[in-house]
Amino acid sequence: MELYALVERLFPLPRSLTGEGVRQTLSVLAEDLPLAVTEVPTGTTALDWQVPREWRVREAHVTGPDGRRVVDWADGPLHLVGHSAPFTGRVDRGELLEHLHSLPDRPALTPYRTSYYADTWGFCMPHERVERLSEGYYDVVVDTDLTAGSLTWGEVIVPGRLQDEILVSAHVCHPAQANDNLSGIAVAAGLAQRLLDGPTPRHTFRFLFAPGTLGAIAWLARHREDVVPRISAGFVLTGLGDSSPPSYKCSRRGDAVVDRAAQHVLRHAHPQARLLPFTPYGYDERQFCSPGFDLPVGRLGRGVHGEYPEYHTSADDLSFVDPGRLEESLDLVAAVVDVLERDEVLVNQEPYGEPQLGRRGLYRSTGATPLDARAAEMALLWTLSLCDGSRSLLGVAEQADLPFTVVAAAAERLKDAGLLA
Amino acid sequence: MELYALVERLFPLPRSLTGEGVRQTLSVLAEDLPLAVTEVPTGTTALDWQVPREWRVREAHVTGPDGRRVVDWADGPLHLVGHSAPFTGRVDRGELLEHLHSLPDRPALTPYRTSYYADTWGFCMPHERVERLSEGYYDVVVDTDLTAGSLTWGEVIVPGRLQDEILVSAHVCHPAQANDNLSGIAVAAGLAQRLLDGPTPRHTFRFLFAPGTLGAIAWLARHREDVVPRISAGFVLTGLGDSSPPSYKCSRRGDAVVDRAAQHVLRHAHPQARLLPFTPYGYDERQFCSPGFDLPVGRLGRGVHGEYPEYHTSADDLSFVDPGRLEESLDLVAAVVDVLERDEVLVNQEPYGEPQLGRRGLYRSTGATPLDARAAEMALLWTLSLCDGSRSLLGVAEQADLPFTVVAAAAERLKDAGLLA
Amino acid sequence: MELYALVERLFPLPRSLTGEGVRQTLSVLAEDLPLAVTEVPTGTTALDWQVPREWRVREAHVTGPDGRRVVDWADGPLHLVGHSAPFTGRVDRGELLEHLHSLPDRPALTPYRTSYYADTWGFCMPHERVERLSEGYYDVVVDTDLTAGSLTWGEVIVPGRLQDEILVSAHVCHPAQANDNLSGIAVAAGLAQRLLDGPTPRHTFRFLFAPGTLGAIAWLARHREDVVPRISAGFVLTGLGDSSPPSYKCSRRGDAVVDRAAQHVLRHAHPQARLLPFTPYGYDERQFCSPGFDLPVGRLGRGVHGEYPEYHTSADDLSFVDPGRLEESLDLVAAVVDVLERDEVLVNQEPYGEPQLGRRGLYRSTGATPLDARAAEMALLWTLSLCDGSRSLLGVAEQADLPFTVVAAAAERLKDAGLLA
Repeated sequence: MELYALVERLFPLPRSLTGEGVRQTLSVLAEDLPLAVTEVPTGTTALDWQVPREWRVREAHVTGPDGRRVVDWADGPLHLVGHSAPFTGRVDRGELLEHLHSLPDRPALTPYRTSYYADTWGFCMPHERVERLSEGYYDVVVDTDLTAGSLTWGEVIVPGRLQDEILVSAHVCHPAQANDNLSGIAVAAGLAQRLLDGPTPRHTFRFLFAPGTLGAIAWLARHREDVVPRISAGFVLTGLGDSSPPSYKCSRRGDAVVDRAAQHVLRHAHPQARLLPFTPYGYDERQFCSPGFDLPVGRLGRGVHGEYPEYHTSADDLSFVDPGRLEESLDLVAAVVDVLERDEVLVNQEPYGEPQLGRRGLYRSTGATPLDARAAEMALLWTLSLCDGSRSLLGVAEQADLPFTVVAAAAERLKDAGLLA
Repeated sequence: MELYALVERLFPLPRSLTGEGVRQTLSVLAEDLPLAVTEVPTGTTALDWQVPREWRVREAHVTGPDGRRVVDWADGPLHLVGHSAPFTGRVDRGELLEHLHSLPDRPALTPYRTSYYADTWGFCMPHERVERLSEGYYDVVVDTDLTAGSLTWGEVIVPGRLQDEILVSAHVCHPAQANDNLSGIAVAAGLAQRLLDGPTPRHTFRFLFAPGTLGAIAWLARHREDVVPRISAGFVLTGLGDSSPPSYKCSRRGDAVVDRAAQHVLRHAHPQARLLPFTPYGYDERQFCSPGFDLPVGRLGRGVHGEYPEYHTSADDLSFVDPGRLEESLDLVAAVVDVLERDEVLVNQEPYGEPQLGRRGLYRSTGATPLDARAAEMALLWTLSLCDGSRSLLGVAEQADLPFTVVAAAAERLKDAGLLA
Repeated sequence: MELYALVERLFPLPRSLTGEGVRQTLSVLAEDLPLAVTEVPTGTTALDWQVPREWRVREAHVTGPDGRRVVDWADGPLHLVGHSAPFTGRVDRGELLEHLHSLPDRPALTPYRTSYYADTWGFCMPHERVERLSEGYYDVVVDTDLTAGSLTWGEVIVPGRLQDEILVSAHVCHPAQANDNLSGIAVAAGLAQRLLDGPTPRHTFRFLFAPGTLGAIAWLARHREDVVPRISAGFVLTGLGDSSPPSYKCSRRGDAVVDRAAQHVLRHAHPQARLLPFTPYGYDERQFCSPGFDLPVGRLGRGVHGEYPEYHTSADDLSFVDPGRLEESLDLVAAVVDVLERDEVLVNQEPYGEPQLGRRGLYRSTGATPLDARAAEMALLWTLSLCDGSRSLLGVAEQADLPFTVVAAAAERLKDAGLLA
């Protein structure tokens, strides 16, 4: 699966909280993955919320005093505030300005705005164009409607040997935002395909492609009893295609295994990787980590929402996402997953004194050794020393300050020699 | 109550460990506050100590070879070592010097010295004057006596809804020391009046105006069974009028709620505020925090005893105390008290997923918000996230790194909306 | 006992893992100390290991194409790889080079190498001489044999009032290495003599002089049931004569009393002292701290193996060890032992309020005191405050940030006054 090609293909689809754009996005994913789609009807209660009506746009534009189109939804979905209520009429410049959204500090960019829960309309456009609007009257057409429909999500299950699940979630509601979140969708899809192509994993993996906030809430409401108690780790994937160093936002618990695994992998993978503490603001970790659920779900990304100027603007386009960074992000997620998959508690079977490694071909014969062999020996010694039943291999790697892969390889050799079980 | 005016009025009174000076000081306080006075007779056993006799001075001076007064108690109480034993006689310069106390490194200042538990006499004077004393004989008159009497303290109780008490203590034994401790007395009196003038507090407040060391010991001895077990927090107030930044010395426990509340308030109130660890030296926290009692009582002040050159000298006079600093100190104490009063454990009533704040008028409707509204929203989100029953509002403020007042305001809004209880 | 003289006397003895060199070394120690020698026969199983045969060298040398001796064991034991297998024959330069060990980065030094568990032979020599070897044939004589014998160790017991033992261990297998480990042997012997010359200690002390790795393993195997469970603290002593600052490597536990005591003493004794975390590589702490035993045994030294260029080379000779540093190291070990010996949990007998120290002659009478008296008073106050049964005197010293000796002296005075018991 070529991640960047997937981002390109999904970019033009008119995503929103509900509706056809989401369905089309899921259809594309379903071409490669065994995706199951769920529709939750408008009006369904989901925890403290209700599934809203579907929003549809037929046309939406503003025509100026000189008869020229000032802004038009047909030029791109960002130009209309998401879930704008229908309106047709003539307004003067002052009234129009109250319905225009722009960014004075980034005057060439169009912002991305929604108004899911307020009955109003609005357009988004570059501030430099707002400033050039002349006095006079403007003809506004917002031909939209909200009708009964459903909220849509898709899931891919990769069955594992355990019932325990690892949840991988990416939101699918933002239109025309490449990094936020076609990058997350693509990396999640890529990981799903890797797992499906590989041997049966230890954990069961569940990939959730759902609209932000309400999608997660409706999913949690539906699976509160059956799936939620089985989730042993999870990630929200978002913002994985830009050129910032990788970042991981801890779950609310802060020291869940997934937090430790992600921190470990990022620290060894990238000198500038950032570990962010939990905050109750952000993406769908807000829902998964709400205090009633308090799931061990963190968020893996690169640049952090609100910190980069392209965030939620027309500049988060296809040029903002880099194919190499997408692949690197997939490798990072896969490395964290590898830790979760291979982490286990093993116990030294010869804990009294050092076992004689030389006799088992695990140790140098003379007193001088090349550096790499010495490092491998140190990993054997650390693993034997720390595998006393009180910590897993990840704990060994953390305490010995060695990469997990090195410790896991040492553990394999020691298991083969009967020294670890 | 004008704090500085109170300091001015108390300054000339001849305070000592026992006696009329203490009684006069308490009488002044009793003009504005419902002060109850306790007298403990000489000879009464108090823990490991005994109440001493009262010390009275009729006259005390030294006359030089030229017939001129070298030093005279009538010029100020600091000139005579506190509790000097009576003596009348002629001594040569060498013998006199053994009874003179001065400060070679601060030659213009007179030190404050006492000798409560040794049977001797002494005078205090500027070192520059000691150095000018000529050879010859000096006539010494120390007309004092120690007679049976009592140890005196005063208390103001502000009844609260709870039996739990917050203790506010200020020592009342130092003569002619404005910062140490008329500042503490004035701030304590000001806080008492604020509480008496306001609505009934949650905690019961007890203000203790007692002589240092022995006063606290005798009070603890008397109230060991009835009051001491009810003390949930407390402060020793001293040195609150100088221009140093505020400081808080932790209780022996180090992490009592009062320690956390004071640390929190000081950190947010003053960039140079100092948090001092407990040490077994200092003021009456030595007694309240002795290991048998180990009360959650810290010490709030500004400059720290022994660190500023005016400490225990004639330079700790009315000019050393600033009216604005006194008021600022009162506001600080009141802010810490406010935390103690309003801190409580509240629990999110909609802990599964985020509650829909928009529907309740608690959230912005469109995707961009002014910074202050955003901060208020963040406080709502933090409070909902962290109020899971495992921590109080102070704990929320600490973990979210928000001022307590902001968290408490968010909690009020959430309680009003039924989301917190 | 003059430590450096002992190092000088032991230097020429031909130590190895087993054999006469070890026996001769122990014989020298037995001249001054009540040393008990144990012999464990070849073939005896010891945990995961077996006691090997004894290795004996009759002669070993290489003669060059010009008939001149290239390298000769008779010039020093480092020139032959320890436990070289017998070999006699003519080899060309290329084949010879595969059996030569040298240090390209320190071309003037001869390395120390062993090959206990591989059936091969080798010589060690300066790299600058290896590089001058001409083409041609070389006559090699390695006249050694491996015969049934035993592994040898010596022990000195200093009986104490308690059965609990403090183990002091020094390895005795390295030939011609002054710092590694004649310094450790000398300091251990010096400490044993000090204890034997003094009053009966509280703990029983056991000094173990055994070959590295296998000696410790065989000793642990033999005393697993009787002695090991009684070990309450211990040190491996090695590298104590060089001029680096002292260092202490923590036991695997990291916070054992011996770790805290050593850290405390080193921090107060030497500004550059180093505290090293446990690693599973090093000297015999590897065995004592293997996870099955996990004994509270740390390692005290100065320069750390592998960090100084003289390590395991001909430069670790008598000139590398300094008599003054040896004595300083002995004083350090003795100071740590003093903490272990005198540490105890004492409880304040007057914990309610401060006891009246003045009445007991423990406190100044007037309000000014010389600095040293003030420090002594502070130690009294800290000891009274912290001796609540929850920590020992070492814990008091740690928390009060005072030297243990100061706290212990204060505790003595308070015990004498009946205030501590």
